[in-house]
Amino acid sequence: MNKLPTLADVEALDRLDPLAPKRAEFNLPDDLIYLDGNSLGAMPLIASQRAREVVEREWGQDLIRSWNQHDWINLPSRVGGKIGKLIGAAPGQTICCDSTSVNLYKLLTCALGMQKGRTGILTQQDNFPADLYIAAGVKDSIGGQGCEVITVQEGELLERIDTTIAVLLLTHVNYRTAAVHDMEQLTARAHENGVLVIWDLSHSVGALPLALDQWQVDFAVGCGYKYLNGGPGAPAFIYAASRHHAAMRQPLQGWMGHKSPFEFAPDYIAASGVAQFLCGTPAVISMSVLEAALQVFDGVDMESVRRKSQELSELFLLLVTRSEALQKLRLKSPLAPEKRGSHLAFTHPQAYAICQALIAQNVICDFRAPATLRIGFAPMYVSFRNVWDAVSRLGQLMEDKTYLHAEFTQRRLVT
Amino acid sequence: MNKLPTLADVEALDRLDPLAPKRAEFNLPDDLIYLDGNSLGAMPLIASQRAREVVEREWGQDLIRSWNQHDWINLPSRVGGKIGKLIGAAPGQTICCDSTSVNLYKLLTCALGMQKGRTGILTQQDNFPADLYIAAGVKDSIGGQGCEVITVQEGELLERIDTTIAVLLLTHVNYRTAAVHDMEQLTARAHENGVLVIWDLSHSVGALPLALDQWQVDFAVGCGYKYLNGGPGAPAFIYAASRHHAAMRQPLQGWMGHKSPFEFAPDYIAASGVAQFLCGTPAVISMSVLEAALQVFDGVDMESVRRKSQELSELFLLLVTRSEALQKLRLKSPLAPEKRGSHLAFTHPQAYAICQALIAQNVICDFRAPATLRIGFAPMYVSFRNVWDAVSRLGQLMEDKTYLHAEFTQRRLVT
Repeated sequence: MNKLPTLADVEALDRLDPLAPKRAEFNLPDDLIYLDGNSLGAMPLIASQRAREVVEREWGQDLIRSWNQHDWINLPSRVGGKIGKLIGAAPGQTICCDSTSVNLYKLLTCALGMQKGRTGILTQQDNFPADLYIAAGVKDSIGGQGCEVITVQEGELLERIDTTIAVLLLTHVNYRTAAVHDMEQLTARAHENGVLVIWDLSHSVGALPLALDQWQVDFAVGCGYKYLNGGPGAPAFIYAASRHHAAMRQPLQGWMGHKSPFEFAPDYIAASGVAQFLCGTPAVISMSVLEAALQVFDGVDMESVRRKSQELSELFLLLVTRSEALQKLRLKSPLAPEKRGSHLAFTHPQAYAICQALIAQNVICDFRAPATLRIGFAPMYVSFRNVWDAVSRLGQLMEDKTYLHAEFTQRRLVT
Repeated sequence: MNKLPTLADVEALDRLDPLAPKRAEFNLPDDLIYLDGNSLGAMPLIASQRAREVVEREWGQDLIRSWNQHDWINLPSRVGGKIGKLIGAAPGQTICCDSTSVNLYKLLTCALGMQKGRTGILTQQDNFPADLYIAAGVKDSIGGQGCEVITVQEGELLERIDTTIAVLLLTHVNYRTAAVHDMEQLTARAHENGVLVIWDLSHSVGALPLALDQWQVDFAVGCGYKYLNGGPGAPAFIYAASRHHAAMRQPLQGWMGHKSPFEFAPDYIAASGVAQFLCGTPAVISMSVLEAALQVFDGVDMESVRRKSQELSELFLLLVTRSEALQKLRLKSPLAPEKRGSHLAFTHPQAYAICQALIAQNVICDFRAPATLRIGFAPMYVSFRNVWDAVSRLGQLMEDKTYLHAEFTQRRLVT
């Protein structure tokens, strides 16, 4: 598509889209264009059915018996197994539990414990701040053993990896710019230097094809409520490669991660395998909803998801060139679609107000401080026509400068 | 009630019970006698309505806008405030987050950090094993700074508290025997020795009157899915007394506990107050269900809850004396009702099979290894008639020895 596509072209793209029928599996309001699946995925209908079932039937009627009758006890490993398929992990290496941040704490402490004599956590200045906070917390709490957090620019990562580093901690897709790291290359470089890697997959799982086993990744965490559509605050997950299972040990030793949780033994004996990353009782309702949401991915090829994501964002960029007013938005994402994840980031001094004005036009996107507008393309429910309409409305409000109205410029807490 | 009550007496107790109308607020199957609210509370109808609303309306229709529109952002502190009222905490000291185990890890590490020069965590051999596992995990992970876990018998606690101890970690109501600690006395003794206390309220919140502020408690954790009826795996909570807010610092530094979560600043600055105990994104669905469930306690006096709990268990014990066969059950709970929580524990070599056989009679209780039968009395939905029927069925199956059938003796994983 080099010449500007017409509306008819865009409609043809939707007709030819093999993922188009997926939209019907979601309960999105008809008049809403939802371009924020990178922050909170839309609701699969099956997830809301499952919520009723787990609450009304399993909790309400079967009560405590559901641990057996509805196999709540295996929920974390069952959901982990389903996520494992989406990230290229053979069975037994992925488990669903807690939040991404809590899981990252477990993994960082675990990996540092496996790297005696090394103290450095190498990460990127522009990593997701939450991950940097967790790294700083690990540093402070295990300070006695020595731990240092080293943050460098993206371009300095490869050269900074050396044999003093214990752990390389990176987010696969940058939450702000959508820049994608070469996970395979960085992991290989880390391993050449005896460094363990922890990848945060929060902005890639469910959007990009991943091959964690093949790329020899050591550990990973990821989020359940973005492209996995698991619902607000859905539990997160941990991946730990089988080859590390014998040596790994994490500090949040909970009863669910015990070898025999129902023996109520006084001493902790870690479960073998990835189950040791469980801590307390899982949030059964939230996790059951996530499990159901994952069915949307049944039979879906992640390569086709990736392809549509790139086509959607490329269409957006192409349509943006039509409007003079839209040239004021500065693209902060990589131009090459293979170098970026499933969203686009633009900066503008009035990014906050533009975001609010676009939301008022029923196009949901989001803002990240200080001046970034993020537009997400979740291929399971975003159509090419959605992109056409979103660019039209964005262009119009930029031309008319309606975003300068006070109702849009006034900041609220959450954006 | 010294002479054996008749069925008519028991029915009169129900007619006079001021909490009897509460039963209608729960969706319990009519034919079920549910004596396991100490493990998983029953489902309040309002909780299932709220589940539909938060899933179908807030997530499904309003999506990311719900952080503002439905005030998801303040959910943890709002739910914390409601729990605070049940534990005698002035506002601003209680917050809902994560699991009890994860929260205990935060508090233990925090309290140790406030007690420089002291290394001992004093606890009880018979503490809830999950709490002992977490203490051991803290010891291992912050080993460089020195940490020792000292476990003693219940009777040795008071004398073992001295100025070498950093933290006293106890569960208010023993999960096995239901024995209740004198929280006020132990806390006072701890403070005389400069020791900080962390109380686990999992088996007392929602069942016993608590006065954490008045008793000068430092920190506490508790569970949302037992007597609070928050649903399977409901989020837990943390209490931290205001006087410690300036000095406390916990290691699971997450974005939700940041002073300005939506600034996405590279450095972590802890929120002032109890909000710093938040870590990752809360499980919004599960936490919203818990919030609704707490409405059952609106206008309820915890003294009346406690009184009914004692009357129910006293009736159970009285009725047990009627049957020869029931004498084979050995009471492991304190005889005096004020010395025990809201359940009764009996031991029997065949406790597992007895529990299964009773469940087959539609009386839900539970088993704890190696040989304990637990009978819970959640005053919000258990009637005196329930107790009458439960003892009758238990007596019958003990007399007939039906519990020796293979279907009951065969162990399953979860009990």
